[in-house]
Amino acid sequence: MRALRYYGPEDVRLDNIPEPSPKAGQVKVKVAWNGICGSDLHSWHAIIAGVSPTSTNPHPVTKETLPVTMGHEFSGTVAEVGPGVDASRFNVGTKVVVEPLISCMEPTCPFCSTGARNLCRNATFIGIGGRGGGLSEYVCVDQNQVFPIASHVPLDVAAIIEPLSVAWHAVKRSNLKAGDSVLVLGGGPIGLLTLRAAKAWGAKWIALSEPALKRRDLAIQHGADVVFDPTAPGVDLVAEIIRATEGRGADVVYDCAGLQQTLDAACLAVKPRGHVMNVAVWDHRPTLNIGSMTVKEFTLSSVLAYDRVHAEVVEAVGQGKFDGLESLITRRIGFEDFVEKGIKALLHEKDQHGESPLLSLYGATANKSSVRIVKILVSPEPGVGST
Amino acid sequence: MRALRYYGPEDVRLDNIPEPSPKAGQVKVKVAWNGICGSDLHSWHAIIAGVSPTSTNPHPVTKETLPVTMGHEFSGTVAEVGPGVDASRFNVGTKVVVEPLISCMEPTCPFCSTGARNLCRNATFIGIGGRGGGLSEYVCVDQNQVFPIASHVPLDVAAIIEPLSVAWHAVKRSNLKAGDSVLVLGGGPIGLLTLRAAKAWGAKWIALSEPALKRRDLAIQHGADVVFDPTAPGVDLVAEIIRATEGRGADVVYDCAGLQQTLDAACLAVKPRGHVMNVAVWDHRPTLNIGSMTVKEFTLSSVLAYDRVHAEVVEAVGQGKFDGLESLITRRIGFEDFVEKGIKALLHEKDQHGESPLLSLYGATANKSSVRIVKILVSPEPGVGST
Repeated sequence: MRALRYYGPEDVRLDNIPEPSPKAGQVKVKVAWNGICGSDLHSWHAIIAGVSPTSTNPHPVTKETLPVTMGHEFSGTVAEVGPGVDASRFNVGTKVVVEPLISCMEPTCPFCSTGARNLCRNATFIGIGGRGGGLSEYVCVDQNQVFPIASHVPLDVAAIIEPLSVAWHAVKRSNLKAGDSVLVLGGGPIGLLTLRAAKAWGAKWIALSEPALKRRDLAIQHGADVVFDPTAPGVDLVAEIIRATEGRGADVVYDCAGLQQTLDAACLAVKPRGHVMNVAVWDHRPTLNIGSMTVKEFTLSSVLAYDRVHAEVVEAVGQGKFDGLESLITRRIGFEDFVEKGIKALLHEKDQHGESPLLSLYGATANKSSVRIVKILVSPEPGVGST
Repeated sequence: MRALRYYGPEDVRLDNIPEPSPKAGQVKVKVAWNGICGSDLHSWHAIIAGVSPTSTNPHPVTKETLPVTMGHEFSGTVAEVGPGVDASRFNVGTKVVVEPLISCMEPTCPFCSTGARNLCRNATFIGIGGRGGGLSEYVCVDQNQVFPIASHVPLDVAAIIEPLSVAWHAVKRSNLKAGDSVLVLGGGPIGLLTLRAAKAWGAKWIALSEPALKRRDLAIQHGADVVFDPTAPGVDLVAEIIRATEGRGADVVYDCAGLQQTLDAACLAVKPRGHVMNVAVWDHRPTLNIGSMTVKEFTLSSVLAYDRVHAEVVEAVGQGKFDGLESLITRRIGFEDFVEKGIKALLHEKDQHGESPLLSLYGATANKSSVRIVKILVSPEPGVGST
C-alpha cells in the first residue's frame, strides 16, 4: 500500500509498504481523511525529541525506528477485524475515528494507571512514534482506541475529531461552567475548536482574538459573540473584555496562541479567581505577570493532548453539537501533494508571519492578517487533487 | 495614648495621640502584642502604592492621609465596647485578635459581595491604610472583624494568628488533601506557618527548603519530615523530592520565597496534575517553565492575604492544632525600640543577603544562612525591653 513515511527533517517519502493485517483485538481501518497538524510542521524542521524515534534510537514503547508512517488525525471505515474484536461495535464498513495516543500502559506507570495516559513519560502517537499512521491506505489499531461514529457524520468532518478532542480536554480541565464568559486567544484550528468546545460546554459569551481576517470570520460563523483583531490600531483587547464583562473579566481565558502578548493579555483579561488555560505549545519560557495572578488569585494551568475523551467527543459530534466543522477544511489534497501543497503551503504562511514551527504547533495566532489556511485534509485516494 | 505613626519612608514617629472611643458596633481593643510584617519593611523604603495613602492623597476607603498608625498583626483584650456590640461575644477583658482587612464593602463591588474582600480593588489594612493600628495602645475595630480567642491561648502567640491566616488561606485554596506530600520553599515566617497549616490540613509528608540553619531547625521542630539547604554543595532539591515521593513529585508545592530559583524548583518538583501555590510577593516577573506545566498539566495559582478565615484559624488554635508557635518569636521589644531593634534589625539581616524589601515581604528565603530573626513582636508596655 502507499504510505507517507517520515525519514527525518525535510525527508518525507511516498513509499510502497506491505499492507498490515489486524492482530487479535485490532481493527484494520481503511483511511478516508487525515488532517495535517502543527506537529507535522514541527517534524519537518526537527525530530520531535522524546516523542519520535530516530533512525538509530527506537521509541521505548513502539520499539520502532525511523522511518515511520505519518498522520494521527484520521477517519476511515473498518476494512477488517482481527480475532476477538467486539462484533457489536465493529463491522466491515463501520465509520470510525482513532484516538492515536500511545503510552507505556505498564501497571507501575503512575499515569497510565490513573487515567492520565497523556502524561506518561513515554507517551507518543500513532503516526509519530510508530504503529502506522493515517497517511497510509490502511492502519491497524487496538479496538479500545477505535471509536465508531454516527453514520450521518461525514468522514472529512470526522478527521477533525482528534484536534477537537484536544480542545474538549482543555475545556474539561478548565472548570468552565454553564453561563461563563470566555476569551479565546488565537483563531487557528485549536482556537476555533476551543471556541466550539466552550460553546458546547455551555459558555454564554465568547470573544475571540485573532489577527487573521479569515479566521475571525470563521470564529463568528462558529458562534463567537465578538471578535477582535489585537493588532488593529486603537484596539485595546483587555479593556474591551473588561468592559464587555461589566468590569469583571472573563471567567475563563484560553491561550491557543502561545505568545508573550497572549499570555500577558490573558492575565489581565481574566476575572479574579478565574482560570487561564494554556492550550498552546511554546518554544520559549514566557514571563509571568505574577503580580496580577496574586491580586486576582486566578489559576493558570496547561494541557497536553487528551486522554480518553474521544468517546465523549464522538457522542457530541453525533448529537449535532459540532455541526458546521466542514467550514474549517480549507483544502483537500492527495498523498502526492502532501509536501508541496500541504506541509510547505502551511510553512509558507507561517514563514510569512515570522513564527517558529513549534509556536504554530496548535495553530498559533499569526502576527499578520493574511493567513488563509485553517485545516488541510489529505486522502489516500489518487483522484482527490487539490481543492 | 502612644502610637507609632508612619509619615512616609524612613519616617516613623512615636506620637501621643487621642485615645479612640468605640462607635456603635465597635470594640475598643487594648493592644497586647503586634508582630512586625514584611510590609512594614517595605513601607520603610517606599509607600505601598494603592494600599497606603500619601500625605496628600487619602485612601479611597478610609479617607485618611498620612500619618497613619502602624501595625496589623495584633492581639489584645477588650477595653470597652460601643453601643450595639454583641455582649455574648465581647466583655471587658476578653482576649481577642483582629482581622485587619479593610475593603470598600460597596454592594456593587464584585469582590466584597462574593466573599473575596481581599481582591477588592480598594483593599487595605488597619495599620497601613488607616483606622488606627496595632502599634498603639488602643484601637477601635468593627465587631465583625474582632475574634475572641480561647482563654488558654497566650496573647503573644495570638499575635501570630494574622500571618497564620495568610498561610491557612493559601493551604485552603491549594486543594491540599489529607495524606498529600508537600514541599514548602522558604522557611521565613510565612513558610513556617504554611508548613504548620499544611500539617493541620492533613499533609502526610512535608519537606521544607531553606538556606538558613536556624529556620531549618525551626521547620523540624514544627513538624517538617525533612529539610534541605538548597545552597549546600551537592544538594539537588528537585531530585530529592522526586526520590522521596517514589518518582511522583510533591502533591502541592508552596513557594513562600518568591525567587526565580524557587519557582523553577516548584515546577520541577510538583507531581503531574499537582498544584503549585505561590504565597510570596514578587518584585519582578519571573519566567515560567510552561513546558513543564504542559507535560505535567499542573496548576499554578497565587494568594493575597485572606478573607474571613480568622474564625477558622482562631478555632484551630484554640483546639491546640498550632501548639508551639511561641518558638517563632525571636524577640520582644517596646515601642521605643521599634525602629532600631525592629525594622532596622530585620532590614540589616535582609541587606546582608542582598534581598529587596519587597522580596522579603512574606519572609523570603535568604541567600545566605546567617538569618537569625523569625518574628519580632512589639508591645505598648513601656517595660518590655528587648529579649
